[in-house]
Amino acid sequence: MQPDDIKNVLDAVRRKTMSIDAAMARLKSLPFEDIGFATLDHHRTLRKGFPEVIWGEGKTAPQIITIITNMLRRKHPILVTRVDAAKAARIKKALPALTYHPASRLLSLRQGRALNRGRGTILVVSAGTSDIPVAEEALVTASLMGNTVDHLYDVGVAGIHRLMEQKEKLFSAAVLIVVAGMEGALPSVIGGMVDKPVIAVPTSTGYGTGFGGIAALLSMLNSCASGLAVVNIDNGFGAGYIASLINRL
Amino acid sequence: MQPDDIKNVLDAVRRKTMSIDAAMARLKSLPFEDIGFATLDHHRTLRKGFPEVIWGEGKTAPQIITIITNMLRRKHPILVTRVDAAKAARIKKALPALTYHPASRLLSLRQGRALNRGRGTILVVSAGTSDIPVAEEALVTASLMGNTVDHLYDVGVAGIHRLMEQKEKLFSAAVLIVVAGMEGALPSVIGGMVDKPVIAVPTSTGYGTGFGGIAALLSMLNSCASGLAVVNIDNGFGAGYIASLINRL
Amino acid sequence: MQPDDIKNVLDAVRRKTMSIDAAMARLKSLPFEDIGFATLDHHRTLRKGFPEVIWGEGKTAPQIITIITNMLRRKHPILVTRVDAAKAARIKKALPALTYHPASRLLSLRQGRALNRGRGTILVVSAGTSDIPVAEEALVTASLMGNTVDHLYDVGVAGIHRLMEQKEKLFSAAVLIVVAGMEGALPSVIGGMVDKPVIAVPTSTGYGTGFGGIAALLSMLNSCASGLAVVNIDNGFGAGYIASLINRL
Amino acid sequence: MQPDDIKNVLDAVRRKTMSIDAAMARLKSLPFEDIGFATLDHHRTLRKGFPEVIWGEGKTAPQIITIITNMLRRKHPILVTRVDAAKAARIKKALPALTYHPASRLLSLRQGRALNRGRGTILVVSAGTSDIPVAEEALVTASLMGNTVDHLYDVGVAGIHRLMEQKEKLFSAAVLIVVAGMEGALPSVIGGMVDKPVIAVPTSTGYGTGFGGIAALLSMLNSCASGLAVVNIDNGFGAGYIASLINRL
Amino acid sequence: MQPDDIKNVLDAVRRKTMSIDAAMARLKSLPFEDIGFATLDHHRTLRKGFPEVIWGEGKTAPQIITIITNMLRRKHPILVTRVDAAKAARIKKALPALTYHPASRLLSLRQGRALNRGRGTILVVSAGTSDIPVAEEALVTASLMGNTVDHLYDVGVAGIHRLMEQKEKLFSAAVLIVVAGMEGALPSVIGGMVDKPVIAVPTSTGYGTGFGGIAALLSMLNSCASGLAVVNIDNGFGAGYIASLINRL
Amino acid sequence: MQPDDIKNVLDAVRRKTMSIDAAMARLKSLPFEDIGFATLDHHRTLRKGFPEVIWGEGKTAPQIITIITNMLRRKHPILVTRVDAAKAARIKKALPALTYHPASRLLSLRQGRALNRGRGTILVVSAGTSDIPVAEEALVTASLMGNTVDHLYDVGVAGIHRLMEQKEKLFSAAVLIVVAGMEGALPSVIGGMVDKPVIAVPTSTGYGTGFGGIAALLSMLNSCASGLAVVNIDNGFGAGYIASLINRL
Amino acid sequence: MQPDDIKNVLDAVRRKTMSIDAAMARLKSLPFEDIGFATLDHHRTLRKGFPEVIWGEGKTAPQIITIITNMLRRKHPILVTRVDAAKAARIKKALPALTYHPASRLLSLRQGRALNRGRGTILVVSAGTSDIPVAEEALVTASLMGNTVDHLYDVGVAGIHRLMEQKEKLFSAAVLIVVAGMEGALPSVIGGMVDKPVIAVPTSTGYGTGFGGIAALLSMLNSCASGLAVVNIDNGFGAGYIASLINRL
Amino acid sequence: MQPDDIKNVLDAVRRKTMSIDAAMARLKSLPFEDIGFATLDHHRTLRKGFPEVIWGEGKTAPQIITIITNMLRRKHPILVTRVDAAKAARIKKALPALTYHPASRLLSLRQGRALNRGRGTILVVSAGTSDIPVAEEALVTASLMGNTVDHLYDVGVAGIHRLMEQKEKLFSAAVLIVVAGMEGALPSVIGGMVDKPVIAVPTSTGYGTGFGGIAALLSMLNSCASGLAVVNIDNGFGAGYIASLINRL
Repeated sequence: MQPDDIKNVLDAVRRKTMSIDAAMARLKSLPFEDIGFATLDHHRTLRKGFPEVIWGEGKTAPQIITIITNMLRRKHPILVTRVDAAKAARIKKALPALTYHPASRLLSLRQGRALNRGRGTILVVSAGTSDIPVAEEALVTASLMGNTVDHLYDVGVAGIHRLMEQKEKLFSAAVLIVVAGMEGALPSVIGGMVDKPVIAVPTSTGYGTGFGGIAALLSMLNSCASGLAVVNIDNGFGAGYIASLINRL
Repeated sequence: MQPDDIKNVLDAVRRKTMSIDAAMARLKSLPFEDIGFATLDHHRTLRKGFPEVIWGEGKTAPQIITIITNMLRRKHPILVTRVDAAKAARIKKALPALTYHPASRLLSLRQGRALNRGRGTILVVSAGTSDIPVAEEALVTASLMGNTVDHLYDVGVAGIHRLMEQKEKLFSAAVLIVVAGMEGALPSVIGGMVDKPVIAVPTSTGYGTGFGGIAALLSMLNSCASGLAVVNIDNGFGAGYIASLINRL
Repeated sequence: MQPDDIKNVLDAVRRKTMSIDAAMARLKSLPFEDIGFATLDHHRTLRKGFPEVIWGEGKTAPQIITIITNMLRRKHPILVTRVDAAKAARIKKALPALTYHPASRLLSLRQGRALNRGRGTILVVSAGTSDIPVAEEALVTASLMGNTVDHLYDVGVAGIHRLMEQKEKLFSAAVLIVVAGMEGALPSVIGGMVDKPVIAVPTSTGYGTGFGGIAALLSMLNSCASGLAVVNIDNGFGAGYIASLINRL
Repeated sequence: MQPDDIKNVLDAVRRKTMSIDAAMARLKSLPFEDIGFATLDHHRTLRKGFPEVIWGEGKTAPQIITIITNMLRRKHPILVTRVDAAKAARIKKALPALTYHPASRLLSLRQGRALNRGRGTILVVSAGTSDIPVAEEALVTASLMGNTVDHLYDVGVAGIHRLMEQKEKLFSAAVLIVVAGMEGALPSVIGGMVDKPVIAVPTSTGYGTGFGGIAALLSMLNSCASGLAVVNIDNGFGAGYIASLINRL
Repeated sequence: MQPDDIKNVLDAVRRKTMSIDAAMARLKSLPFEDIGFATLDHHRTLRKGFPEVIWGEGKTAPQIITIITNMLRRKHPILVTRVDAAKAARIKKALPALTYHPASRLLSLRQGRALNRGRGTILVVSAGTSDIPVAEEALVTASLMGNTVDHLYDVGVAGIHRLMEQKEKLFSAAVLIVVAGMEGALPSVIGGMVDKPVIAVPTSTGYGTGFGGIAALLSMLNSCASGLAVVNIDNGFGAGYIASLINRL
Repeated sequence: MQPDDIKNVLDAVRRKTMSIDAAMARLKSLPFEDIGFATLDHHRTLRKGFPEVIWGEGKTAPQIITIITNMLRRKHPILVTRVDAAKAARIKKALPALTYHPASRLLSLRQGRALNRGRGTILVVSAGTSDIPVAEEALVTASLMGNTVDHLYDVGVAGIHRLMEQKEKLFSAAVLIVVAGMEGALPSVIGGMVDKPVIAVPTSTGYGTGFGGIAALLSMLNSCASGLAVVNIDNGFGAGYIASLINRL
Repeated sequence: MQPDDIKNVLDAVRRKTMSIDAAMARLKSLPFEDIGFATLDHHRTLRKGFPEVIWGEGKTAPQIITIITNMLRRKHPILVTRVDAAKAARIKKALPALTYHPASRLLSLRQGRALNRGRGTILVVSAGTSDIPVAEEALVTASLMGNTVDHLYDVGVAGIHRLMEQKEKLFSAAVLIVVAGMEGALPSVIGGMVDKPVIAVPTSTGYGTGFGGIAALLSMLNSCASGLAVVNIDNGFGAGYIASLINRL
Repeated sequence: MQPDDIKNVLDAVRRKTMSIDAAMARLKSLPFEDIGFATLDHHRTLRKGFPEVIWGEGKTAPQIITIITNMLRRKHPILVTRVDAAKAARIKKALPALTYHPASRLLSLRQGRALNRGRGTILVVSAGTSDIPVAEEALVTASLMGNTVDHLYDVGVAGIHRLMEQKEKLFSAAVLIVVAGMEGALPSVIGGMVDKPVIAVPTSTGYGTGFGGIAALLSMLNSCASGLAVVNIDNGFGAGYIASLINRL
């Protein structure tokens, strides 16, 4: 219920075309409408071209097909995360317009008018080759959300010169997503070089005391460089999402 | 060593006023100058009015006074973090122009032209009253870095209606810093309501299995809401800093 | 040995039909009988229609069939937890009267007179769709224990309005079981809204720093809302059981 | 704003004693009132004689005096937790009607008509003498919330016979709060004996691998007995609160 | 109530000097006595010369004095653990017969006939000098419980030859208590040499990743040598107690 | 080299049938023989009938067959731990005299004269049915090491009366091995009842915050009962081994 | 760009066969070359015969074949870590000159002139037979890097005499790599005996509270012996690598 | 007992000036001497000028004075670690020749001939100013052990250019000790640049999820750079010691 709706009710009451009881009944539904983020949220999504994101893990192929089919009618862009190749194949059989990204295990569909909502470039940097799947999840997410994206892979701190050679790319990005496993030092080094926000993503790459990404996570949370914030281990999607929110400001 | 310096060396070589060996020796120092973030970094700080931040913990009052005195000459804004009241008093005796913020234990000095670099408002939200010192650290940092700031305190999820009443404020911010201890649920709830980046700050408020902020940190890293990134426990300064970088884009 | 038995012994001693030594021997067995919760417990179960619960994990189908067959003779309701579909199929082949609940992996049989022992409604709330198996385990347990049950699924804090729209349901329950994984914030939000006891159930839903439910567990233990108590990760049965004890008071 | 208030506004609009704009302005505050847990909550507190609880840790004596003074006007019962003896003395100097409970560090004031809202007895059991402060916090909270309370202290499992001798007391309670540090086994043993809900409270009593209450907490969460739920380490207040909600059903 | 008491009741019933109701009333207390670990325990203590142990931490000097005074009447040996020097001085002023052991912070009194219940020698071995307080707690406990004790201090694995030179002492002990902090390797080395039970006691000696004794504890639990069992960190008393039980067999 | 060997060398030197250099060469090997636990150890094993224990995990069937074949020649009793059924079948094909214990996954062979080295009975107690494999590992180990053994299974604290009824058995054992998973409370309860050494064995039985046996381990290390020591999680063999050393004293 | 290249540019400038602008353009790439660890690193590898190490985990056989083929052209020695037998077989089919080390899962190729760069012997010691794969990874790495290597396996502290008999070997090594799982005590014992650097390698051998190598790691970090440093759990390659750097000094 | 002593015994036997029994008695002490690390160790210390190191924590000033006085007689260099200023003052009063290093809390005395045993330079690098005390502990230790030492402080990764400017110093060191707290990234960056062994020292500098040095420790253990080994948190002495062993090779 929008402000005009309320006004209309009041007008009708004044004009006595609506009884007070009927007005009361109408206003009774206000609590729903009044908080109303659901509706607003819904509209915002349509309006802004942000994907409705489907968490693919633990959903069957038919369940995902049903959800996507509903969303396609509303011309939403589609993003499904954590879909393995076999499930993706079953879904694509039903919905061949979808694109599957095997490295990042994402299924996506760009529809509606072409969007380019972000103003700068979101640069996704990864430390090692085994961090690339998470980096790709961030990259595809940010791209589908309408951003210009670029990447710089395999520039970890064990060979710091590889990073130094790419200073131009680092300096020209508006937002940086830095993905690293093992000791997770790369976001600290980059955070000390650039003056843009850095979203650090720890990955579960490593073994032994890497503890499935905890060593990298702690490195990033305790970074001596300013201008970093961190998302959950392996959460490439989350990094791509907040980087997009930042780039849209 | 700047491009012109290199050109001068080459010129001298061509004009044979400098031997090849001497030129080699001059160019040998290139690696230093060439990377040269130090200098760039240094200039950038002066140019952008970003405070040089002094970590006050573990430094004596005389040490801090010496550092500030040096910085004052270059007309830098000053920000010193984690200074207790006694130490602050000793410093202010020598440098009375400084402002002490007792809640956040910050010492600051705004100098040079008034800056308003951030474009939107940075809103600092805290869950409980005991989270306010960390929230204030973020607020003062963001303010000193040239942003319009606002705050919303004591709106934790135990009384969710207090938050709901403030939707306007939440919706009109450009960047949100959400500070919470105990179960750390507030950033998730706010992250589900707004479409702006949320920087979540866990605090060490709580007891028992709060583990000095770890429960809150884990809550924030595992948030089911998108658009959140997290900084270290009690790191109000870090949150204010990255929020400023975001707001400047 | 019951009070009357003791009296009989004393009578026999008085009437000298039993020697003091024989009486001493009879009374010697008192410690066993005297504590005697086993028997009481046993009777209580029959009397109160509470299911004998069989932990299905690590037991073979034949073992479970044997146990159930014994219990069926005593007209007990049956509840077997953590039974996978294959094992359930083998058991149902032998005991077709049982009902299998695939989502919660429970096997149950309601027998004896219809019971409605709980006075209010136990409402089971879940944050996400992947928390539903644990929620169902709670729901089926509480239902089999004779309670009116209801549920509210997929109302997590990332879309707080979904919860707000269901306030009536929340407010009319006598006991609430709130099931959540990831950041586990939902019980805190609900605990701040209702004035009834909330049993919080963390689930192992999530990844990375969710640590298999620990993040959610810590959130719940550190809740800033009053009126919550917590059970083990994924322990839907335990939540259903204590909620039933509460609802029977 | 209550239903009658809305009706009055509508009446005034109908009678044209209030303009539509003025009505709009009045109704604009509806969202606040409409969600209205604040108000409801507020009324409910007055109505139900439940104490407004003040977390005393980290508040100064003057701050606490101010809050209490405001609450006294509304005839609320008062409960302040975690107040050390020195602070309590300063507060009592200003507000001599308050009672200080040194063991549990609570300050309380019973005012308004005598309440006896809980129907059964809440029994607080503690394992060791060093668990008594937490047990007392639970006891005083439950008592102030209008319950008949009883206790059983120093009956830990190292001398299980002490517990066995008190079976009558255990069996006659409506709700049990069981407080234990060290290995935290007591709630499991009691949970296996009674058929009433048991709220288990781990305490930080112990040393070494007790880890400040974690050993006890894990014991309680993993109890092989059914009918237990757990609150945070040392959270006697929380246990007393939920036990009161349970006892009021 | 002892066997003779029961017999007396039965006799009185037989002789009709006691009514059946009065006998019932007397026997009503039987369940208590019947389980009777308390009583047995109590007698056993007197009979076996085992000290009643008082946990001194968290008790005031007057409380400890009262407890000891009661025990002295029953001619019990006295052992109070974890008493600091100041508290010990206050207690000794009232009870000068007590002995204070400053290294182990124990207060003890040997009374009744001299006991020598253990058959072999209990050897207490410590790795470093800073482990001696815990070692002494074990030594004094075992001695007071009537054992022949010996010790071997500062023979840690960093200088394995010091241990090798003492093989005779190691080989002639009946039970060994091995106390070590830091890496806690000593019990493994000794456990591989002797064919007697080894009670391993981790201490909180160390820093950094010693984690207050956890590193040593884990070393001991994971020992590749057979014949070891472990007690809590710094629990010298517990080691002395179980070693005494073993030595008495 | 034994004392007689040294004497022979000295004799030969004296009789000049051996040069000083040759004697030096022979004595040079003294360090080996001199420390000589290896030899002593070896002899001790033969003499005392203690099994040579083979850790079966990570060894192939042929490797185990080779080791056993060597040991059989020396008439050693055989004990192989952690052998799964398939591997055991392959080994038994080659060595049919071995006995396989499927519950505890042990392979054993009793050879040489019948031994009954332990003086009392070692009682193995388990809390739940899923703890039985670990309990059996302890039982078979202690039995093969020449002890009279007995057991008491499924007497966990959730039904404390089951334990109370078996007091006679508990009181008559010389050493008790108490095996428990989940909350691990059983050793504390038994430790409070008996005056014999209790070896507590945590098992990995449980889920969620049981953390694969850590909850049970912590319970046992923090037991409020005296007379307990603990071995590693699931280490039934280790418990059986130290209990045998204790029972032989 | 190497020193000679710079000289050539300067020469050309001096001889005026290259314009200053062209020289500037050439030198513009200096930042890259100037930092130039990549190039130096590259040359160093060729020059020093150190293997280019390929992390085999997570790479497919074709990917590894491609990388090796490129490296073979440059006459590099080859070392691929963490290759399982099946993948190794596929790679060896294409590149039969490679050697596969099944215990350590390494693939290697020694090419170029025979190197013997290390001056002393690197001795690899392992505590148990299950630690041998990690020990072999260290051994093969150090050998391929041009060192004389030796080993001493299965000399864990449970039979300390086995180690004592090998003192000569221990004392004659220049660098020692000591590999141990379970309680990880061996490096401490050896570190107390030798006066050479000891690289300690914890392995994930063990169960229960071994926590996949953490118990061993903590033992090593907290060693009471001086002269130890530690690498990650199961990181045999890392130990072999740093030992080689040390031995080359 | 040294080889010559054995020869003398044998000679005496041959010459019959010593009976076989007397010879046996003399050789009986061989086991001690034979293992004899103590003696060897003792001689080695004198011979090699390595300091006897005294762990100062937990020792009183008089205890330390006694130990030093004994060592002074043997002309040992003295090193006492972890001595606070007050205790140092008391010791220096008695032994004024000692030098106190306030930053590293070391007490030292260089005596005997000037030693310069290490061949290259040991470079101590620290990330931040608060890591300097630990760095100094390493520096003083290595210096006292006879090495040429150098340092490079405050070159953490937040300003990577500071490090890049010092490549010459990094490249010319024989062994590097790299000290860092917070995220501990510096050793990884340096390890990727140099081809010399790097001893990484985590410090407890930091807050929140730095966990007193654990974040830094994990970073270092999981370094993606080769050629690193790690010592305990804040263990500057241990790093200086092993670096000295390496530099002496």
